Amino acid sequence: MRSHLPRLLAERNLDAIIVHGADGLGAHSAAWNYMVKGQHLHGDVIVPRGKPAMLLYHPMEIQAAQATGLELVSFGKWDLKSIAQKSATRLEAAVETWRTILTDLGIRGRVAWYGGNEMSSTIALIDGLRRAMPSIEFVGEYDNSVLDVARRTKDADEIAALIEVGRRSAIVVAEVVARLSLLRERDGLAVDAKTNQPVTIGEMKKFIEQRCDAHDLEQVGDNIFAQGRDAGIPHARGTLDEPLRTGASIIFDFFPRCPKTGYFHDLTRTFALGHAKPDVQKLYDDVKACFDEVMRSLKVNGNAKSYHDLTCDVFRKQGHKVILDTWPLEEGYCHSLGHGVGLEVHEPPSLGGFVDRGDTLAPGSVITIEPGLYYPNRGMGCRIEDTVIVDADGTCRSITPVPYDLVIPLS
Amino acid sequence: MRSHLPRLLAERNLDAIIVHGADGLGAHSAAWNYMVKGQHLHGDVIVPRGKPAMLLYHPMEIQAAQATGLELVSFGKWDLKSIAQKSATRLEAAVETWRTILTDLGIRGRVAWYGGNEMSSTIALIDGLRRAMPSIEFVGEYDNSVLDVARRTKDADEIAALIEVGRRSAIVVAEVVARLSLLRERDGLAVDAKTNQPVTIGEMKKFIEQRCDAHDLEQVGDNIFAQGRDAGIPHARGTLDEPLRTGASIIFDFFPRCPKTGYFHDLTRTFALGHAKPDVQKLYDDVKACFDEVMRSLKVNGNAKSYHDLTCDVFRKQGHKVILDTWPLEEGYCHSLGHGVGLEVHEPPSLGGFVDRGDTLAPGSVITIEPGLYYPNRGMGCRIEDTVIVDADGTCRSITPVPYDLVIPLS
Repeated sequence: MRSHLPRLLAERNLDAIIVHGADGLGAHSAAWNYMVKGQHLHGDVIVPRGKPAMLLYHPMEIQAAQATGLELVSFGKWDLKSIAQKSATRLEAAVETWRTILTDLGIRGRVAWYGGNEMSSTIALIDGLRRAMPSIEFVGEYDNSVLDVARRTKDADEIAALIEVGRRSAIVVAEVVARLSLLRERDGLAVDAKTNQPVTIGEMKKFIEQRCDAHDLEQVGDNIFAQGRDAGIPHARGTLDEPLRTGASIIFDFFPRCPKTGYFHDLTRTFALGHAKPDVQKLYDDVKACFDEVMRSLKVNGNAKSYHDLTCDVFRKQGHKVILDTWPLEEGYCHSLGHGVGLEVHEPPSLGGFVDRGDTLAPGSVITIEPGLYYPNRGMGCRIEDTVIVDADGTCRSITPVPYDLVIPLS
Repeated sequence: MRSHLPRLLAERNLDAIIVHGADGLGAHSAAWNYMVKGQHLHGDVIVPRGKPAMLLYHPMEIQAAQATGLELVSFGKWDLKSIAQKSATRLEAAVETWRTILTDLGIRGRVAWYGGNEMSSTIALIDGLRRAMPSIEFVGEYDNSVLDVARRTKDADEIAALIEVGRRSAIVVAEVVARLSLLRERDGLAVDAKTNQPVTIGEMKKFIEQRCDAHDLEQVGDNIFAQGRDAGIPHARGTLDEPLRTGASIIFDFFPRCPKTGYFHDLTRTFALGHAKPDVQKLYDDVKACFDEVMRSLKVNGNAKSYHDLTCDVFRKQGHKVILDTWPLEEGYCHSLGHGVGLEVHEPPSLGGFVDRGDTLAPGSVITIEPGLYYPNRGMGCRIEDTVIVDADGTCRSITPVPYDLVIPLS
């Protein structure tokens, strides 16, 4: 939570953190959106230990700056024009600009710098600043960074935003199911009841896009609506001109974002149109049994990796290959059980990996639970995924109000 | 152009470049999208000097990996599981993973690393690799990086994609103008002809969003549809519940992206509904005269900064304050003349700044020309912006087929 930042800075012995808001990264600089509460602007936020966060903003973006509620400092406070004119290169100008700003604001000691940025620029800027400002130790953090840890537990406003985007996502899924249930079977294909023509994956993706617009959701990147062999490859997006078939497994992995709050939802359902082929039904039953067992086992402060281990145990007993035994693995359970969800669709904690890194389900964690089984050479795959909140009172509950049914009866 | 990369590596004495495709950055890691031609996947591209580019991909994303057309190397080639198990932290695992991969691929010497990434992770990873691999010099680049320079001149495929997104953008603007022209005036407001109710900025933004969907364009971040005082603040997005007024200046800055190719367009028009107040008309005339003079002056291999200087000259003669004389400036001409457009809406070259950094309009450059004047305290602003291609044959031509009219007659 944002309110944890002062404590986290003290624990890490950091004297300040800087969060960079690069031009053009938009929704994709999660650290930045976290600090400016989703306002559209670029600039930098500086949090000196024991002081309120300051937003360094460009005068052209004063309105968005004011809307952040942060303490405001205009870049116009410093004579950046003279600095640019005295510098031989843009890098020299950037280093001198930051030397001036950090000196003027009294920043010293250990400083960590967050936010999305071009890697080559980051390397050049930090190398330059280390030469120009030996009084500051610029600290890298990899995982469990101050901002990762703060963002890992959501406060009440964030939980409300996450529940709301889950609610709207569920409506879109209900509309997709309703649309599919209006199809009818002809020669193994699911065809439009009026035109008698096959309906393609691409048409369903278009329909999903339209329903997202109707409910003010945006898809950042493509959804997964993948059938048969594609469903057997976890990240295959689906083949646009492929007609929908009855009986086959269709994986619909849907991870929209609310443009207003910036928060994501993440859910997956596996469908079979009209009926499920026996091996698809068996695959679904195995995954659903695993999903249920994992959901029942979730506990506040539980060890995140232990649920991935449990998933492997369940699938192994069912006779499937699992990633903890064989890597890389293309058949069976070949990915992680889940991940945090928030301003990024994938964020800490991780419910997977080969090693326990100490991630837990803390009160305020919001995670996915998404066991899946994949058999591309048998033309099928199945995944079931909910987004789950770990409440302060110790309950873990799904915020994905969507039925789990495999078979969608046709008209 | 991509074909320039071998020459650029040799010129910079770089032995290899690595381009990182971070999970979740999607459209916003331009360097990555450039290398993988817009495919949705994460991983890393390595270009050793004198050798073809290799894509390091995750087996789960094999389909997208194949679609890039790059030489493929699966991360499964290396025993990353053992590395993870032997490493005490995720950072240690990442450093050892990269040490293993770079050693195995024979990468040595001077290496630059590009792509969007969390700053704190970049700092920690590069610090760790510098300790672990003294045989490699990890080089930062700030501006004029190898990838910036390559991307700065577009090849025929990219030009075609840029023209296409311009064409579709122009259709959306025509639809917006058509929608506005159906309104009628009542008591200084532009009202719906049927309901007699005021139409708000928010309703127009919703309409623009719908038309983008219809023409398969996406808005990355919000458009600017800003009226009156908001129009006088260059980056104000517009106030959603504000009713449209007749006579006032409305700035519509529209920068959609084609989801398929990843290329942006960028255009701005200033509108006045029904009629223009005299001072709005005068402001428009000044900006349009400046726009025309700059457009006439563009020449292949012209110095980019010189056009910004020219813009300041023209506006200064008209009696406006300009950024080259006063900074920061909140009234008059207070921003740059333009910027490159491609896989980012803002990319090099820059047609602005306080200092000439040697940027030119090379054959294959695609840039914006966007002079504007802003008077927030007089409740008005005006900007006109086209996207312009610098052709190999020496002509500079607009690819924004949209009329420049200020006044939209009402019904």
